[in-house]
Amino acid sequence: MTTASVDGRIEPAADQDRKGPGRPRSARVDEAIVEAVFDLLSAGQSADAISIEAVAAKAGVGKATIYRRWPNKEALLIDAVTMMKGQLPEPRGESVREDLVMLVSGMGNKRMERYGRVTACLLPELVKSEEMHRVYQGVIEPRRDVMRQVLRRGVETGELRADLDVELALLMLSGPNIVQNMLNWNPMVPEERFAEKLVDAVLRGLAA
Amino acid sequence: MTTASVDGRIEPAADQDRKGPGRPRSARVDEAIVEAVFDLLSAGQSADAISIEAVAAKAGVGKATIYRRWPNKEALLIDAVTMMKGQLPEPRGESVREDLVMLVSGMGNKRMERYGRVTACLLPELVKSEEMHRVYQGVIEPRRDVMRQVLRRGVETGELRADLDVELALLMLSGPNIVQNMLNWNPMVPEERFAEKLVDAVLRGLAA
Repeated sequence: MTTASVDGRIEPAADQDRKGPGRPRSARVDEAIVEAVFDLLSAGQSADAISIEAVAAKAGVGKATIYRRWPNKEALLIDAVTMMKGQLPEPRGESVREDLVMLVSGMGNKRMERYGRVTACLLPELVKSEEMHRVYQGVIEPRRDVMRQVLRRGVETGELRADLDVELALLMLSGPNIVQNMLNWNPMVPEERFAEKLVDAVLRGLAA
Repeated sequence: MTTASVDGRIEPAADQDRKGPGRPRSARVDEAIVEAVFDLLSAGQSADAISIEAVAAKAGVGKATIYRRWPNKEALLIDAVTMMKGQLPEPRGESVREDLVMLVSGMGNKRMERYGRVTACLLPELVKSEEMHRVYQGVIEPRRDVMRQVLRRGVETGELRADLDVELALLMLSGPNIVQNMLNWNPMVPEERFAEKLVDAVLRGLAA
């Protein structure tokens, strides 16, 4: 378990500086800076409003430390988005329902909730900047692909309808969750067992 | 057809200034200013980044004209969000499926698509400002309520399951659409007949 705490300001020599076991100190500094970006974004700062000064202050480093790593704010934001990636979930492959519940729950965990807010605050940037948009796609597409494969498997095994529209199904399973997380000022459906409830309702339908 | 004219902030002379039939000139000026806000937001400007100068230039009015109507940018943004409201849709009340298709299509029309982008660019502001958030809720909640009533009617008539979770159903019908519109850089499911496809898939479920 790593933490992003950074004590004090980092001196120029710090890049080379290894303190005992663990990752190089510079990696911890990178992480603290990126966490500071996430903190500012998830508190409702838009990408426009974020300054390198504010990131430096939040991360407890000097501005020069940031500029040594990233030429400008855009480059920093792009790296931050890339770091939202984390590990891809691995479905167990036994039951489609179970795998979908796992994937939907994963979208709703605390980490993802925070990223939901981060994404919300990045949206103007995603609308505006093609590069940021492309980077963000690179983060979400592999995750969407995991769910796509589970859905295709369900069609093959007969667990899902033979005429399933996979892309629509993907939207039906992710849309409600994204809306709950991103617009989470109004948790319309209580969190508890949300993933199971959603998956079951999507699988069996609303019609009598 | 009424417009959301802003009473009380109208400059005395303009109120009297009617040019032939139609709405007072001041209402048209208000509208041009609010449209300018929407243009800037839907082009990817965040609320932070928008300046009264930019709004004035886009609307073709002087800054003083804006400041005569709104004391500051926040007040202008709040009025703009209120004006997104428009008329509430009126379901025909014959078939639940038909009414849901109508409501979902309404969410996906050109006007709403634009508001999807506007909302996307307002999200940081909605995360940050409780007042803006409350105003936005006031805009969307009456629309959500129309769909809620259709769903409840469906339970009563037996068109929908007796044990329907209405709030979850609401999310299932609106979430995919919101995600398509707001993150519309990637129209995952082609537009054509999207509403019908979504409603039918939600009603009958994905399970074999």
